[in-house]
Amino acid sequence: MNNKQVVLASRPTGAVTAENFRLVETPLGKPGAGEVLVRNEWLSLDPYMRGRMSDAKSYAKGVELGEVMVGQTVGEVLESGDASFKPGEKVLTPLGWQLAGIAKAADLTKVDASRVPASYFLGILGMPGITAWFGLHEIGQPKAGDTLVVSAASGAVGSVVGQLGKIAGCRVVGIAGGKAKCDYVRDELGFDAVVDYKAGKFDEDLRAAVPKGVDIYFDNVGGPILDAMLGRMRLFSRIVVCGLISEYSATEAYGIKRIRAILVNRIKMQGMIVFDWKDRYGEAIAGLAGHLAAGRLKYRESVTEGLENAPQAFMGLLKGENFGKQLVRL
Amino acid sequence: MNNKQVVLASRPTGAVTAENFRLVETPLGKPGAGEVLVRNEWLSLDPYMRGRMSDAKSYAKGVELGEVMVGQTVGEVLESGDASFKPGEKVLTPLGWQLAGIAKAADLTKVDASRVPASYFLGILGMPGITAWFGLHEIGQPKAGDTLVVSAASGAVGSVVGQLGKIAGCRVVGIAGGKAKCDYVRDELGFDAVVDYKAGKFDEDLRAAVPKGVDIYFDNVGGPILDAMLGRMRLFSRIVVCGLISEYSATEAYGIKRIRAILVNRIKMQGMIVFDWKDRYGEAIAGLAGHLAAGRLKYRESVTEGLENAPQAFMGLLKGENFGKQLVRL
Repeated sequence: MNNKQVVLASRPTGAVTAENFRLVETPLGKPGAGEVLVRNEWLSLDPYMRGRMSDAKSYAKGVELGEVMVGQTVGEVLESGDASFKPGEKVLTPLGWQLAGIAKAADLTKVDASRVPASYFLGILGMPGITAWFGLHEIGQPKAGDTLVVSAASGAVGSVVGQLGKIAGCRVVGIAGGKAKCDYVRDELGFDAVVDYKAGKFDEDLRAAVPKGVDIYFDNVGGPILDAMLGRMRLFSRIVVCGLISEYSATEAYGIKRIRAILVNRIKMQGMIVFDWKDRYGEAIAGLAGHLAAGRLKYRESVTEGLENAPQAFMGLLKGENFGKQLVRL
Repeated sequence: MNNKQVVLASRPTGAVTAENFRLVETPLGKPGAGEVLVRNEWLSLDPYMRGRMSDAKSYAKGVELGEVMVGQTVGEVLESGDASFKPGEKVLTPLGWQLAGIAKAADLTKVDASRVPASYFLGILGMPGITAWFGLHEIGQPKAGDTLVVSAASGAVGSVVGQLGKIAGCRVVGIAGGKAKCDYVRDELGFDAVVDYKAGKFDEDLRAAVPKGVDIYFDNVGGPILDAMLGRMRLFSRIVVCGLISEYSATEAYGIKRIRAILVNRIKMQGMIVFDWKDRYGEAIAGLAGHLAAGRLKYRESVTEGLENAPQAFMGLLKGENFGKQLVRL
């Protein structure tokens, strides 16, 4: 049986292009002892992957040239060399951008797809949802009556952050790009207000949306939006630095000018990565699943068909063209 | 009896100049009920005063044009309309840049100058020392073996931060300008190393001084030094944003580019002002006085003679020309 894989062909300078990827066909072996052969059904695309395409120091090692692009998938066990996994079971894997692969049993997690679609374990019940859960609760520390602003508000992380903020009793304002996403964030997700950063008068619209300032800013974008937000933060407010998508494809970093606001308003600004709570994932998944089952969380997926279209979908994600959690159906 | 005062004559744009101040002579009244007439002996000069010369929003209201410049003094009670203060007693006052003044009794604090000079209550046992105490301990959270870097290391706050860091078991590196200050920081204050930001190869010298990175950066300066420090911070490190003296006289803020480090290394960056712990000042003063009495803290004052020279001394302070805590003897 042959496998198809998307490998890193070259490192991007600035924006990612199709030339940075190569689709290859490779033979697929047999799982050895303690190994499991999985057919991938869903591939998750996430902004952090842009960092892995670079060889700059980051929280995880970059992908080597010629290696399969990293990523989580959900798939079905085809053949197992480990007693704890059986053919037909659904599993969460780190196999990346390929149709199938052999993983160590220790790197797989079974998922219960009886009540929610298996793909949810790549989104609202997976890393994006868990990121939202711990980032908001542990760093943002929401209290009833707080004003919470979240950027990339229609995205996999932002949409969950905002809804959890509403559950916590916050006034929630989203930042998103374009009318369709803004309408969704306000009308479907139930945010109290939304600011369209593509509408051309961001500072004015932001000020109108948060007249009393902001207690928590959950940042997925960095850059000029972070700088503008610093100017709206209240005394003893918190900024959760979860992502900097506006920077990932920039050849030169944006210079943040409103550092003085951190001093004057005693802002706490803190970076986070979901792995920091890896011993507590179960707590987040249980909490999210409970809200989901109770109808308190809405969730939207953006599905691209076929591995060969993954690079295009990923480039779109980095430009904010996706709408909801970006997946590839393999 | 006539009084002399330095009032704010105009607001600076960029660097403070002599024209921003005016020395005036005014009649001095009598203290009413609940009031105390104090002859000021020592005036404290501090970087925060630059902010008060501006009318930009900050953590405290700016000085109005024609008003006496704000500041703490230590002085002697001349005449009292309040039973709790007697002539001859030494007090800490908010009377600002003037030879004498009438304060509400509630705004005065008696100081015990029997064991340390009264001026110490403007420095190591006053706001700068208390700032160092809470900023380092509460936000920096030093642990034995941590690497602590402090900027403006020979100054009133920085010199105490570094010495408290040594007491906490940290490896302490100072940043200061010029050989004399650097020698003092290393040889007199006992820092493990010092980087001269005026020596022309800051990035290289910094890297050599902290080869394993930095756990706590206590920032008094902001600007390019903060940006360079972001590139040296370790996983889960802390940045105490205490002052931004490099920015105070800038007409345009410096843009901080290494925000990505906050995400990648999960840095916590937090602003602070000593008032945030005003209910706990006694705890800090007792701790500092204990270390001082035990010979574990060294302290240096830079004394300018005469109220009429206060503006010049303040301009020097903003340019880093002082050496140790800047005072004016009135």
